[in-house]
Amino acid sequence: IKAPHLTGFALKLFVWLIETPILRSIILKRQNELLRETVIPENPMFRPEFPQDPEPGVLVVDEDKDPADRVGSALDCLNPYDPFLYWTIRDYAHAYRSTPSTVVEHIISAVEEPPMPLLISFSAEEVRKQAAASTQRFLEGNPLSILDGIFMAIKDDIDCYPYPSRGATTWFDKVRAVKQDAVCVSRLRNCGVILIGKANMHELGMGTTGNNPNYGTARNPHSPDRYTGGSSSGPAALVASGLCSAAVGTDGGGSVRIPSSLCGIVGLKTTYARIDMEGSICDCGTVEVVSPLAATVEDVMLVYAAMGGSSIDDKISLNPLPNLSSLRSVRLGKYTEWFNDVHCPDISTKCEDALNLLEIILPELQEMRTAHIVSIGSEELTFDTRFSLALFRSFSATDYVSAQRLRRRIMYYHMEVFKKVDIIVTPTTGITAPKIPPSSLKFGESNYQVSGYLMRFILAGNLLGLPAISVPVGHDKEGLPIGLQLIGRPWGEASILRVASALEELKRPSLFHDIL
Amino acid sequence: IKAPHLTGFALKLFVWLIETPILRSIILKRQNELLRETVIPENPMFRPEFPQDPEPGVLVVDEDKDPADRVGSALDCLNPYDPFLYWTIRDYAHAYRSTPSTVVEHIISAVEEPPMPLLISFSAEEVRKQAAASTQRFLEGNPLSILDGIFMAIKDDIDCYPYPSRGATTWFDKVRAVKQDAVCVSRLRNCGVILIGKANMHELGMGTTGNNPNYGTARNPHSPDRYTGGSSSGPAALVASGLCSAAVGTDGGGSVRIPSSLCGIVGLKTTYARIDMEGSICDCGTVEVVSPLAATVEDVMLVYAAMGGSSIDDKISLNPLPNLSSLRSVRLGKYTEWFNDVHCPDISTKCEDALNLLEIILPELQEMRTAHIVSIGSEELTFDTRFSLALFRSFSATDYVSAQRLRRRIMYYHMEVFKKVDIIVTPTTGITAPKIPPSSLKFGESNYQVSGYLMRFILAGNLLGLPAISVPVGHDKEGLPIGLQLIGRPWGEASILRVASALEELKRPSLFHDIL
Repeated sequence: IKAPHLTGFALKLFVWLIETPILRSIILKRQNELLRETVIPENPMFRPEFPQDPEPGVLVVDEDKDPADRVGSALDCLNPYDPFLYWTIRDYAHAYRSTPSTVVEHIISAVEEPPMPLLISFSAEEVRKQAAASTQRFLEGNPLSILDGIFMAIKDDIDCYPYPSRGATTWFDKVRAVKQDAVCVSRLRNCGVILIGKANMHELGMGTTGNNPNYGTARNPHSPDRYTGGSSSGPAALVASGLCSAAVGTDGGGSVRIPSSLCGIVGLKTTYARIDMEGSICDCGTVEVVSPLAATVEDVMLVYAAMGGSSIDDKISLNPLPNLSSLRSVRLGKYTEWFNDVHCPDISTKCEDALNLLEIILPELQEMRTAHIVSIGSEELTFDTRFSLALFRSFSATDYVSAQRLRRRIMYYHMEVFKKVDIIVTPTTGITAPKIPPSSLKFGESNYQVSGYLMRFILAGNLLGLPAISVPVGHDKEGLPIGLQLIGRPWGEASILRVASALEELKRPSLFHDIL
Repeated sequence: IKAPHLTGFALKLFVWLIETPILRSIILKRQNELLRETVIPENPMFRPEFPQDPEPGVLVVDEDKDPADRVGSALDCLNPYDPFLYWTIRDYAHAYRSTPSTVVEHIISAVEEPPMPLLISFSAEEVRKQAAASTQRFLEGNPLSILDGIFMAIKDDIDCYPYPSRGATTWFDKVRAVKQDAVCVSRLRNCGVILIGKANMHELGMGTTGNNPNYGTARNPHSPDRYTGGSSSGPAALVASGLCSAAVGTDGGGSVRIPSSLCGIVGLKTTYARIDMEGSICDCGTVEVVSPLAATVEDVMLVYAAMGGSSIDDKISLNPLPNLSSLRSVRLGKYTEWFNDVHCPDISTKCEDALNLLEIILPELQEMRTAHIVSIGSEELTFDTRFSLALFRSFSATDYVSAQRLRRRIMYYHMEVFKKVDIIVTPTTGITAPKIPPSSLKFGESNYQVSGYLMRFILAGNLLGLPAISVPVGHDKEGLPIGLQLIGRPWGEASILRVASALEELKRPSLFHDIL
């Protein structure tokens, strides 16, 4: 898609123009001709339909169990806790002084004097209350789970009582009231998680930069003059800057993976239907999922274990395969031409280095050297259902059915690929964090070139409902994080988590809070 | 000194023979001839007498202050606390669950089912009582210092009420009762330290292996069929295996530095008179000091700061210069021939590597490349006042005075060297941890060849009262730790601590307890 790079008032003007139906049809006509002129014989696939080949070597957990029990199983899958060579005197001193009630005060100070708008809704009193309850549980020796007293933020398009869900608009809470937690949020709360508030995002998730003229634009903790990526901008910045251990976002077009990649943290897009969507603003789409972001793969896994569990409808129709631990031997696939289609060669180089490292870390991966060419035509995926509302509106019902036929065809291609490989590997984004043009802060920015680079490797995950994880694997010459994406089979979270944990390479950003 | 390698019953027999006065004089006559036939014109120096050149750039602390205040000053000298890239969920969970009362139970279980005899006196009840008091202070928000709730062990030749001080003998407590803590122990207790008991040692400190037929021989946590080194065998093994953050030992002939080197931890021999010796079994000698062992240089510094403070007599006569932080630019001296006089070339190679590393870490050290030849004649130091009681008894009063003349001459040589360099660098020991011959466990072992390698670089520190630190800098081909020794000017602890902290390279042993 070719489109002008617009910021500030020019963008505002363009949106007015494009929202006029006649003008819109003229401007966008050409974009849709490709789809209308293609004959696609497949039956439409209106939402992801998955083959069910259970992966060997994974721990199957009961998704109807208490979330705290699932977290316990996840904990058993991790390597023994061993962060230190030796516990030093200062480690003891810190541990003895830490209660949720002491830590919460560090968070409140950091959030109340924000260098950037990380939270859209926040109440110090509400957070203190949760921290006091958690502290009391520790005093009584009865914490609810390993997640008790852990601070997390919820993206503003997921319900977290008593806060409103505005989706970063100024009005959405007036048409939709929040009466209780979303299902995934209530699972976290049952594990003892302390929810600090509603995190900033790109308005209604309709953008990949995180630009937000309504509440201010969250900045990238690695370089505050750059974007976090979006749409889960606040969740990624909160985690990357050390204020939260984890956050919950939604990913319909990379909204968890893109900001994770740009902020140097880990973002897991779960399989479609893996986690009940009830209580998120977009709970009826077929591409979006609620998903965890965290600083490390192990933390993503613990939060994923707590949030997991599909809705009853999905359980009947899609039969999710809950699993946690993962495979000993994994075959990786890479489509070289796609892999190298990035703005800056640092990105493919670092991602390539990470793959070479896997040979050392997982020596049994003989197949990796003979990695198959993965037949994903990236040109077929430039069709992007989410680039803008205006684009959406230009599609007819016929277009929609055509797209669902195409969707089934692409799913077939992927399933053929997954007969040969377990994981498809790509960079997460084709650029590292882009600079924020000062003019964009007031009225926003539309830059399809940047969006194109940000979303280049993203869409299979959403269109086909595949699980995918972005894991930091290095940095470019300017020190900005580079993310590698691992795309797994349906229900294949366990495998991509295991491989991601072997690859992660973290680096603290320049903006960092030590709250413990 | 040439002597047979004796273990088991042969040693027992030899000791009986040598303790017979007539036989002893025949056997040992030759050893003392060297001393008696040498004319030494210097006045005797009966204990270390120090020139007082204050080092620039150090923080002077008041040694009469509350130990907790001194620890606070030491804390200010450390780099900011920053052990993590990110605090993970498991870091929080550990911190929230840690109180001295929870940690003490892990220690008690580990100590009560010992894989080796680490403690000679221990009372679970006594330790639980201290832990409960510390936990209460944290609940009230009033810990005494950063050392509150930190677990430490005291070598069995230093008083720690209510335990007896046996010096690892079976009888010493019958001739000398313990009515209160030694001065250094009481300073630690005032900072909130939890004292877990009396640590194993070589009987009366009269050996460098740690062999102990009375209570059993502590094993090296890096390789349980090897010695810890001695005489502070228990303190070194307790710290190296993770059971204590630090321990207090005594060093009269390497008894802190040798086991630190062999167990891969940090051992600081303080300047003679730096720390009040009152309450240690050997409180009237002129070579022995009480000194800290810990896993890291920063922990050694914190414990040193708490223990520091000379006796009134020493304050009048020796004028200690209390200091903590240290120099920006340090000149190192190395006497190559001495440096390379080791059993296994790995040791000099690793120590040499560590020195090369310093060039990178302390780039201002121009002088290091032109390091001066240090005029320590190691042949002059083979005279060892502590090799065995039998040897001691063979010296006459004239011998003793001759030795004190020699001591003044050697002090003069060293002070000449310290005009040119700030620190003299040597390996700590000439061998890594030696194997324990099974026959030695019942009656002990005398192996002067091993002792010679263990003590080769040790004695200047004791004879001249100089501060010296052993810091782990690497491992030999069998994975056994290698220690580097830094010998400083009188009162020069600050400089050797700073350089040691730039060099330390830790590795967990195979026997390790995670008690936090």
